[in-house]
Amino acid sequence: MTSSKLKMGMVGGGQGAFIGDVHRLSARLDGQIELVAGAFSRDAENSASTGRLLGLDPSRCYADFEQMMMAEAALPVESRMDFVAIVTPNHMHFPVAKAALEAGFHVLSDKPATLNLAEAIALRDIVEGSGKRFALTHTYLGYPLVGVARDLVARGEIGRVRKVFVEYIQGWLASEVDNKQAAWRSDPARSGPSGCMGDIGTHAHNLAEYVTGKQMTHVAADLSVFVPGRALDDDGSALFRMEDGIKGVLSASQVCVGKENSLSIRVYGETGGLEWHQEEPNTLLRTYADRPAEIIRSAQGYLPAFAADGYRTPPGHPEGYLEAFANVYLDFVQSIQEGRDVATGMAGAVRGMAFVEALVASSNNDSAWTEIDA
Amino acid sequence: MTSSKLKMGMVGGGQGAFIGDVHRLSARLDGQIELVAGAFSRDAENSASTGRLLGLDPSRCYADFEQMMMAEAALPVESRMDFVAIVTPNHMHFPVAKAALEAGFHVLSDKPATLNLAEAIALRDIVEGSGKRFALTHTYLGYPLVGVARDLVARGEIGRVRKVFVEYIQGWLASEVDNKQAAWRSDPARSGPSGCMGDIGTHAHNLAEYVTGKQMTHVAADLSVFVPGRALDDDGSALFRMEDGIKGVLSASQVCVGKENSLSIRVYGETGGLEWHQEEPNTLLRTYADRPAEIIRSAQGYLPAFAADGYRTPPGHPEGYLEAFANVYLDFVQSIQEGRDVATGMAGAVRGMAFVEALVASSNNDSAWTEIDA
Amino acid sequence: MTSSKLKMGMVGGGQGAFIGDVHRLSARLDGQIELVAGAFSRDAENSASTGRLLGLDPSRCYADFEQMMMAEAALPVESRMDFVAIVTPNHMHFPVAKAALEAGFHVLSDKPATLNLAEAIALRDIVEGSGKRFALTHTYLGYPLVGVARDLVARGEIGRVRKVFVEYIQGWLASEVDNKQAAWRSDPARSGPSGCMGDIGTHAHNLAEYVTGKQMTHVAADLSVFVPGRALDDDGSALFRMEDGIKGVLSASQVCVGKENSLSIRVYGETGGLEWHQEEPNTLLRTYADRPAEIIRSAQGYLPAFAADGYRTPPGHPEGYLEAFANVYLDFVQSIQEGRDVATGMAGAVRGMAFVEALVASSNNDSAWTEIDA
Amino acid sequence: MTSSKLKMGMVGGGQGAFIGDVHRLSARLDGQIELVAGAFSRDAENSASTGRLLGLDPSRCYADFEQMMMAEAALPVESRMDFVAIVTPNHMHFPVAKAALEAGFHVLSDKPATLNLAEAIALRDIVEGSGKRFALTHTYLGYPLVGVARDLVARGEIGRVRKVFVEYIQGWLASEVDNKQAAWRSDPARSGPSGCMGDIGTHAHNLAEYVTGKQMTHVAADLSVFVPGRALDDDGSALFRMEDGIKGVLSASQVCVGKENSLSIRVYGETGGLEWHQEEPNTLLRTYADRPAEIIRSAQGYLPAFAADGYRTPPGHPEGYLEAFANVYLDFVQSIQEGRDVATGMAGAVRGMAFVEALVASSNNDSAWTEIDA
Repeated sequence: MTSSKLKMGMVGGGQGAFIGDVHRLSARLDGQIELVAGAFSRDAENSASTGRLLGLDPSRCYADFEQMMMAEAALPVESRMDFVAIVTPNHMHFPVAKAALEAGFHVLSDKPATLNLAEAIALRDIVEGSGKRFALTHTYLGYPLVGVARDLVARGEIGRVRKVFVEYIQGWLASEVDNKQAAWRSDPARSGPSGCMGDIGTHAHNLAEYVTGKQMTHVAADLSVFVPGRALDDDGSALFRMEDGIKGVLSASQVCVGKENSLSIRVYGETGGLEWHQEEPNTLLRTYADRPAEIIRSAQGYLPAFAADGYRTPPGHPEGYLEAFANVYLDFVQSIQEGRDVATGMAGAVRGMAFVEALVASSNNDSAWTEIDA
Repeated sequence: MTSSKLKMGMVGGGQGAFIGDVHRLSARLDGQIELVAGAFSRDAENSASTGRLLGLDPSRCYADFEQMMMAEAALPVESRMDFVAIVTPNHMHFPVAKAALEAGFHVLSDKPATLNLAEAIALRDIVEGSGKRFALTHTYLGYPLVGVARDLVARGEIGRVRKVFVEYIQGWLASEVDNKQAAWRSDPARSGPSGCMGDIGTHAHNLAEYVTGKQMTHVAADLSVFVPGRALDDDGSALFRMEDGIKGVLSASQVCVGKENSLSIRVYGETGGLEWHQEEPNTLLRTYADRPAEIIRSAQGYLPAFAADGYRTPPGHPEGYLEAFANVYLDFVQSIQEGRDVATGMAGAVRGMAFVEALVASSNNDSAWTEIDA
Repeated sequence: MTSSKLKMGMVGGGQGAFIGDVHRLSARLDGQIELVAGAFSRDAENSASTGRLLGLDPSRCYADFEQMMMAEAALPVESRMDFVAIVTPNHMHFPVAKAALEAGFHVLSDKPATLNLAEAIALRDIVEGSGKRFALTHTYLGYPLVGVARDLVARGEIGRVRKVFVEYIQGWLASEVDNKQAAWRSDPARSGPSGCMGDIGTHAHNLAEYVTGKQMTHVAADLSVFVPGRALDDDGSALFRMEDGIKGVLSASQVCVGKENSLSIRVYGETGGLEWHQEEPNTLLRTYADRPAEIIRSAQGYLPAFAADGYRTPPGHPEGYLEAFANVYLDFVQSIQEGRDVATGMAGAVRGMAFVEALVASSNNDSAWTEIDA
Repeated sequence: MTSSKLKMGMVGGGQGAFIGDVHRLSARLDGQIELVAGAFSRDAENSASTGRLLGLDPSRCYADFEQMMMAEAALPVESRMDFVAIVTPNHMHFPVAKAALEAGFHVLSDKPATLNLAEAIALRDIVEGSGKRFALTHTYLGYPLVGVARDLVARGEIGRVRKVFVEYIQGWLASEVDNKQAAWRSDPARSGPSGCMGDIGTHAHNLAEYVTGKQMTHVAADLSVFVPGRALDDDGSALFRMEDGIKGVLSASQVCVGKENSLSIRVYGETGGLEWHQEEPNTLLRTYADRPAEIIRSAQGYLPAFAADGYRTPPGHPEGYLEAFANVYLDFVQSIQEGRDVATGMAGAVRGMAFVEALVASSNNDSAWTEIDA
């Protein structure tokens, strides 16, 4: 409608997909992004009808991402898409991102960035050579209180960090599940070397590194397949070590019956602690050695400005997952407009893949300590 | 962009306002509404610059709502606005709504609908005569679990209702506050006969009637002004009675230091109870006489379809205030498209004003029981 | 066993009673009290067998409290009982207390102290004339964090108090209940002029006065009988006013299905607030205008000494109802040993009865504001 | 006072000790146990004055446990002690228990039972040869809802167990602490091969085995010393495996600043889950795949009888640590009276020591999987 909005093309997200809708809702929320093109499905019919529902120009609904890159690149600058949002299963992330970057488009990709570490490193080189922005939807970093936690740690407010507990547990795969979401997640060809850990363990890893500001260096992991017939892990736990002597435990599971989307992190330093739970994202608990614990709340005036700015409504008006997701989009948009780095960029993408590969290697090697090499 | 979107004009919501942004975010979220016109401020400069920031056509940024109604009505059907969103201080709700309806536009208004009961009744007649839709932003009805609570009560799942506790407490006006939001809220000319009760007590009243499906008939109220110099109540509590022998207590306060936006309702019937808190809106507690209480959760497969449809993401992905607000918009949009009633329409608007007038009358009459006459 | 223990005689608490056991457990916990005599039941058989189970000397198990007073008073000082614990239904509180005091024994009585205000005033005179200690089991004052709340208010830490919410809701009488506990509670002759309010509303009243340090002066009440056939209220709510312009709401109910023993108080002053819930008694929430709320916890080193001394175990080892009850006993024991006042003495007893009578009068008079005259 | 009480002698628990008081409070609560003798301290003065404060016969206050065993054994059956409670630092547990059993007394010992596995096995043989009862204060098994959890698992209510999370974290040793409690806990000679894991990790291990009804077979552990100068671990985490393919994670820490006594367990089976937290011990959460989670509460009528009997007060009257501790004492008393096994007996004691030794071995061997051999 106005040329000040960034124009988005989307690959994936046809009818029947889940995450495509989430991307569209989040991209739309702040009025900074306009969806103008899509290769929503390899099924031309589906792609066209999805585009129709979304009010797209039919000529910009493609059945094929290569075609979309070519056609869009051929449009005049003022009308062609500015960036590509990739919302396909994992195995398509790399080829689409590569094609988009090489065609001159910024990329915002669902995570994980690629199917494996080798691809992630290749992608990093492509991004660096392209001069384009690349962002990964590490959605949970979009919650402003996660940034507050990181900030408190960075400013030494809890002392040198000693111990980290991070976990991400769900229950939706506790039995055999017969749907599109479940199907590709348990197929190594489309999901990569790990199921549960690749899908959600990577969020836990990313959160731990983000909040502490330190890298995880080694893992000793025990991955499991609890539901018979599954080719990839549906559960796992790992001991880990980070820089500066930090130790911790990471668990991810999709077979914890009744758990919804329970991502949480607890960080304890020499003089204090922090606890945050994704399902109650508007509260950050801060513990002290010799004073009452404090309940830090979203949108409050006492938050640092960068965090207060992350809220759209006053305290007590709960903001949730879509707002966090929209914050990731906003950061990406601003990184393009201001030519600066994104918070959820390529570095984390490579580290996430290295993390998954180290987990799998450790688990296959009797849980031996294994270096995360990235 | 596409003619399938409803076109919105907005009155109020210029820079420095709070609720205008909330409306725009919520209206935008689902991609069903397009903002095309605005009289954002009586200050032409402000109105124009607000429109510019929002990417509006400058010719459709008006300094005056009467002018907006006239100009828009003169546009061809396919481009003129479909409805007007009113986000001004209370005293402007009635004149703007009247003008919009008479010019042939549907109206979605911030609550309360009018400054007093007489206006509300007048507005009801205008709405009925207009053949247009009128919706009020009783935002909290937009939380799907509130609908689940209503449904459980209606289906007799907790037996005949006996007792209701409803309260809405905040702390932001515990001291003198010097800003735009606070200023008009404590000015009888702009806010109406009540401050706190008109502003937030009406939400509590509305929630109680919605969940129980019964009308509140009498109140015995004690309103207070705790902060010196304030012309309108900043706190109050009331005993109340509803149809069918239901009794209850309603409290609203803006001087409860440290409370954010704590709206809650608890309803107890002969065989069970329900508890819901706005600040944790994704949980509804159901209590039983002889079984463990149950934690009913948002987006779960066991919810009735009407409620499950109210969520945009799976369980454990918290949805909040903006999503509830967007649900109110969606209901309004669908009521227009399908020619059906809105959940938050004129009936509740009239009842809300009658409630406020009864409260004030009771409080001025030594808390005597006073009928809510509407 | 050792003469340093205080020797207790008990009236009431035979088999089938509930509160007698609670008294015995609590009196026993700290090893400062020895049960030596009892008139546990008017049924001589029951009284004797109860005493036998408790290991009492059969000669000191009486069927009749008058006989117990006489017989014990005739024993040598070093072996006769020091005080009488009264754990009968309400109508017996006064006659037993009178007899005990007149026979020269201290008294610890279950609450309410008497059946009505006139008796309470008469009892006060008897206590004052006797030179003996009288304590009432306002159990909830025995939770140390309640004392911390009172102390914070008294030291001005939340500013001048404005608003108090206090409630005590249960669900166990939501249907007709056919047992001993329920029977006397709903019988005016044994329970007094009020059922629910006399039984548990008085705790809420007592807590509000204790924490604020102010007297409740007026109530406007609406009492209900929800279960058909009941002679006394099983639910009620009241607006109230306290000294110094404090306003509030008090609710008590025994028909809130699924609620167990939910006593809570929230107090808001000019600069802060406090919230405490009996069912999670080891946490006191303190709210601020411009800082995160604090979670004050039991047994922590940062508590004032008087409160820290009220705990028997370190932080994180939950203490509950029996420990609070034992604290009331300890305070009573120390008041005897040190010749000082008890925290839960006659003044509160009289005020509690005046409160109940004012509630009933107000409720019978269309909820008119009624003075609490004591 | 009456011969139906069991007579207790205590070793340890002089002034300045913590756990001695807890034992005395818990043993006293139910009126089934009478303290008659003590060797409270190796300091004769301390032992005598502790006994004096407790009202003991001075001739039965010993400075030496060997002397106590001899002297008490020489008393007539009707007056000599029935059992010995051991509340010393860990290194004295074995010699005192051995002496007591050989002198013909039942033993209730603080945990861990001994300093190491070899001693534990030796003690088991002594217990078996003695015909006496031996109980360990695995206090947390005394919470009735822990028993409910075990019962639900045993009856297949959550399906075959897959994953267990158990942790016990505290913060009180986050800095150097200079007191009696801290001193012996970090001294290998008095505490055994492990600090934190021996002290509290064993509770977590015990809870996991108790609730699941399965044995932990292997651990891969990473123990840490975070506070410089400490000789024993103050933190640690372990992956573990149990019989029947169960996997899990166990963490224990005493350096998590601000945590009090946070023991929790979560167990997930094929069809459901259970969650319990010691700091809110009156609630057990039960999760389902396709129904709302349930809040199972203490003392409710819907609990199985064995659990309901574990409460002394009705629902909503919180019971805590001392009541759980008293339940352990009651079970011990009844095991003596009825000649049956105790819930917290020698088997768990041996397993606990084997667990600690396996942890230490694994941690010293690069966290290699290590069998728990007992």
